[in-house]
Amino acid sequence: MIAQTLKWIGGVDGFLELIDQRRLPAELVRLQCADIGQLYEAIKTLAVRGAPAIGVAAGYGLSLAMQQLKPSADTAEAIAHLEKSAEYLAQSRPTAVNLFWALERVKNHAQTFVSENQNATQTSLREAVLAEANGIYAEDVDMCRRIGENGQKFIKNGAGILTHCNAGALATAGQGTALSVMFEAQRKGKKFKVYADETRPLLQGARLTAWELKQAGIDVVLICDNMAGWLMKQGQIGAVITGADRIAANGDAANKIGTYSLSILAGNHSIPFYIAAPSSTFDLSIKSGGQIPIEQRDADEVRFFGDRKIAPDGVDIYNPAFDVTDAENITAIITEKGVIESPSTEKIAEHFK
Amino acid sequence: MIAQTLKWIGGVDGFLELIDQRRLPAELVRLQCADIGQLYEAIKTLAVRGAPAIGVAAGYGLSLAMQQLKPSADTAEAIAHLEKSAEYLAQSRPTAVNLFWALERVKNHAQTFVSENQNATQTSLREAVLAEANGIYAEDVDMCRRIGENGQKFIKNGAGILTHCNAGALATAGQGTALSVMFEAQRKGKKFKVYADETRPLLQGARLTAWELKQAGIDVVLICDNMAGWLMKQGQIGAVITGADRIAANGDAANKIGTYSLSILAGNHSIPFYIAAPSSTFDLSIKSGGQIPIEQRDADEVRFFGDRKIAPDGVDIYNPAFDVTDAENITAIITEKGVIESPSTEKIAEHFK
Repeated sequence: MIAQTLKWIGGVDGFLELIDQRRLPAELVRLQCADIGQLYEAIKTLAVRGAPAIGVAAGYGLSLAMQQLKPSADTAEAIAHLEKSAEYLAQSRPTAVNLFWALERVKNHAQTFVSENQNATQTSLREAVLAEANGIYAEDVDMCRRIGENGQKFIKNGAGILTHCNAGALATAGQGTALSVMFEAQRKGKKFKVYADETRPLLQGARLTAWELKQAGIDVVLICDNMAGWLMKQGQIGAVITGADRIAANGDAANKIGTYSLSILAGNHSIPFYIAAPSSTFDLSIKSGGQIPIEQRDADEVRFFGDRKIAPDGVDIYNPAFDVTDAENITAIITEKGVIESPSTEKIAEHFK
Repeated sequence: MIAQTLKWIGGVDGFLELIDQRRLPAELVRLQCADIGQLYEAIKTLAVRGAPAIGVAAGYGLSLAMQQLKPSADTAEAIAHLEKSAEYLAQSRPTAVNLFWALERVKNHAQTFVSENQNATQTSLREAVLAEANGIYAEDVDMCRRIGENGQKFIKNGAGILTHCNAGALATAGQGTALSVMFEAQRKGKKFKVYADETRPLLQGARLTAWELKQAGIDVVLICDNMAGWLMKQGQIGAVITGADRIAANGDAANKIGTYSLSILAGNHSIPFYIAAPSSTFDLSIKSGGQIPIEQRDADEVRFFGDRKIAPDGVDIYNPAFDVTDAENITAIITEKGVIESPSTEKIAEHFK
């Protein structure tokens, strides 16, 4: 059974229910975000994570923002509040382009709605905002399925597949990106084994990927990040499939720290390296990976493990959330629109025509 | 100040005092091993770890074994008991060749002592065993210093140096192997920064290497294992220096899981990759790395973190303790005898002439 990560409950006065991913795999707890501040915290503290899920959540975040309006507020005030709320939510994760994309989309929709409807009221605007957030949700579900369908051919029967971090149902509103490829291969009746990197420091692979693959009945083996190269050397890995958080116009792809190393290791062992990500992950305004800002996260994520301190007091720690894999290391990028083999600026431009 | 990992206290009726490395960096606790069973457990559970330290500890373990003899036992009985005890201690860690080497050495010394001394008594034999264990200890201290002296030239002033696991004073009786190179470079007045891989699953890098480098006043930055490649990509790493647990006749080197990946990543970024290890780490009876047995350790080392379960119940886990780095990926092996550049069967045979 594939996990359902987020769900809007109710109408314009409703709330967003999330699987609290900080609590997995110990317990399956659903978190109810009834105001925008809660949602901001949920994104910032990784209760909800994964680029597409963040985008969907942010869309609903603007629906929550509209609930703060006084009944007397007119549509101009409502739009101003929406814009301010979008700016606020955009601060929650600096690297996730889907976050900005979803906020822009809902904001633009609301602006257009007001400008095109002389009779727009706060109520009808709130409905329009929620409808657009629902639209992003539905498209995400459809997008995930298509990515899986487009990518499943890269999983050979009997293969070992390596994945990093979590690009699964827990990272999206639908059935994931990298893991959707696996779910669709499973649906085709293929047998294969997935090696899941535990993905330090926050262990999304151990906590989330291993959990959701197991839930879905896929054969999964958990490894530490430093074991992947050795499995490749022994011929156990037929393909690497990861997600991405942001892809530049030339195909350079930011993803969870460690992805870059996997791409080098895969290349060295002649193993294909795939990225599965929705079109919304592309930021065509960025020419190449060097321009992607890399979020540096708190040293305590590395220093502590739960309550337990694993490193000496005062030791310096380097903790980048992402790295950037060069396009030349990527065998293909799988999107909901199709597959971009040997990605380049030209091929990506073609893909978006 | 460089850590003192183990120390024999007293004479033939003495005991071995160890820094309990399972407790670092939270607390500095010294463990007293007064019988061979305690020592076996200390080696098995990694209270003492690192190939050279295990060898020194095992030597003293045979001194502890001799304390079990009844006063009436003659030298033939004593030798038989010594042989049995050596077999027992050899089971504690299946990959550590220094363990076998030290046990063989003390056993052979005892056998020779008895065969060459008609008047040997249990007492004089016990003294001979302890003297040989002390000899291994003293040679280890000297060996460490020489490795550092031979290798320090590979640390350039201002460089970033990457290391994996712990090949420091905590892994030896002296000042370590890979870290000895750093301690000697420091003594020469060089400034440099060491990036220490935390080294999952048991975090020897976070707990031990970061701790002892900081204690010694060396600039250290702790990273997760999956960050090393990204630092290389950004030009932050001038050299990789690790220890080894077992080196085959052709230079293939078994070391902590993750070392193989680092060697590939280093090669890809044109960064020199050094192994610093004593001659006793070579097993010339093994032609190449394919013949080195790889210890598979308990899945719970990956599944649990302290008391906290980080992976779902029942998920499969792969947990090899070591991997093997091909000789062709190694720029040089630094021993106490000198430096073997581009190691090969011929050059290694020459080194041991």
